Amino acid sequence: MSEVTGRLVIQQCLSASLKLPGASGKDPELVDIGRGMVVFVCFLDKASEETVEKLTKHITNIRLCEDDSRRRVSICDVQGDILIIPQATLGGKLKGKAMQYHMNVDKTLGEALYHRLCQGVRTAIEAVSSGNVKCGVYGARQILSTDTNGPYTHIVEV
Amino acid sequence: MSEVTGRLVIQQCLSASLKLPGASGKDPELVDIGRGMVVFVCFLDKASEETVEKLTKHITNIRLCEDDSRRRVSICDVQGDILIIPQATLGGKLKGKAMQYHMNVDKTLGEALYHRLCQGVRTAIEAVSSGNVKCGVYGARQILSTDTNGPYTHIVEV
Repeated sequence: MSEVTGRLVIQQCLSASLKLPGASGKDPELVDIGRGMVVFVCFLDKASEETVEKLTKHITNIRLCEDDSRRRVSICDVQGDILIIPQATLGGKLKGKAMQYHMNVDKTLGEALYHRLCQGVRTAIEAVSSGNVKCGVYGARQILSTDTNGPYTHIVEV
Repeated sequence: MSEVTGRLVIQQCLSASLKLPGASGKDPELVDIGRGMVVFVCFLDKASEETVEKLTKHITNIRLCEDDSRRRVSICDVQGDILIIPQATLGGKLKGKAMQYHMNVDKTLGEALYHRLCQGVRTAIEAVSSGNVKCGVYGARQILSTDTNGPYTHIVEV
C-alpha cells in the first residue's frame, strides 16, 4: 500500500462560518458559506504538488452532495459552497492517551501546499459553478460554527 | 497490521446540538451539550464487544481537551460533555467519484454496538465526572449544529 500524503475530513453543511484571528489591533475576520461542504485538510510527510492535485480533484468531483431528488452528486452539480480549513490534527496518531503528530509535513511546506489547494479548488469551481470557495488561516486557532443536515462525515486519503 | 473494526472522528466543541427525528406525529427532539466533544462513530466489518471496549476507553481517556493552562487533558479532567453520533459514512471508501460502504458492519449489529458504546461511555463518565453524555439515533438523519474553538478534528481507529 502506498503511503498516505494527504487526508481530508468532509462534512456537508447548510451553512458554516469561521472566525479568523484578526491582524494585530484589528477585529477578527469572519468568512462564511451557505449550503455546501466544510473540508478539513492535513498534509502528511512526503506531501507534494501531486497530493494537492489529487485532493483538488476529489474535493470538486466527489459525489457527496444531494440534489433535489436526493441523488448523490458533486459540489459543482449543486452549485454549492466550500470552506477549506487547515487541520494539522488530522495527522495525529494515538500513542497511549496522547496524540502525536510526527507524521505531518513541516509547517512551511504545509502552508504552501494549503494555499495551492485553496487556489486550485477555487479555480476549478469558478470554471463550472457559481459556488463560493472560502479558506482559513494556516496554523492559527479559528472558531468554527456549522449547521448541518445529515450529518455526513467522510474521510478521504490520497 | 490488524484490521480496523471501529473508527471515530472527534471534534472539540464549545456547544453542540442535535435535532433527532421525532416519533411519528411528534415534534423533533433536541439533545444538546456544552463544552466538551462531539464524537462520530462507525463500526466496520468484524466489530465486536472488544471494539466497543477499546473505543470507550479512548473516548474517556484521550487527552484532547484543554484545561485552564492550555495543557491537554481528558474529557473527565475538564468535566466536559460528550455527544456521540452514529456515522456510518465514516466507513466509506472512495471508488472513482463515489463513496462505497461495503466495509461497514451490518445495521442490526451496528445499532447494538452503538447502544453499548453510549452506555459504556455514560457509565465511565458518571463514575468520575459531572459531564453529560448525550446520544443520537442510529440510522436516522439528524441535524447537527456545533460551535467550536480550534477546531481540533482527530481520527482514531481501533
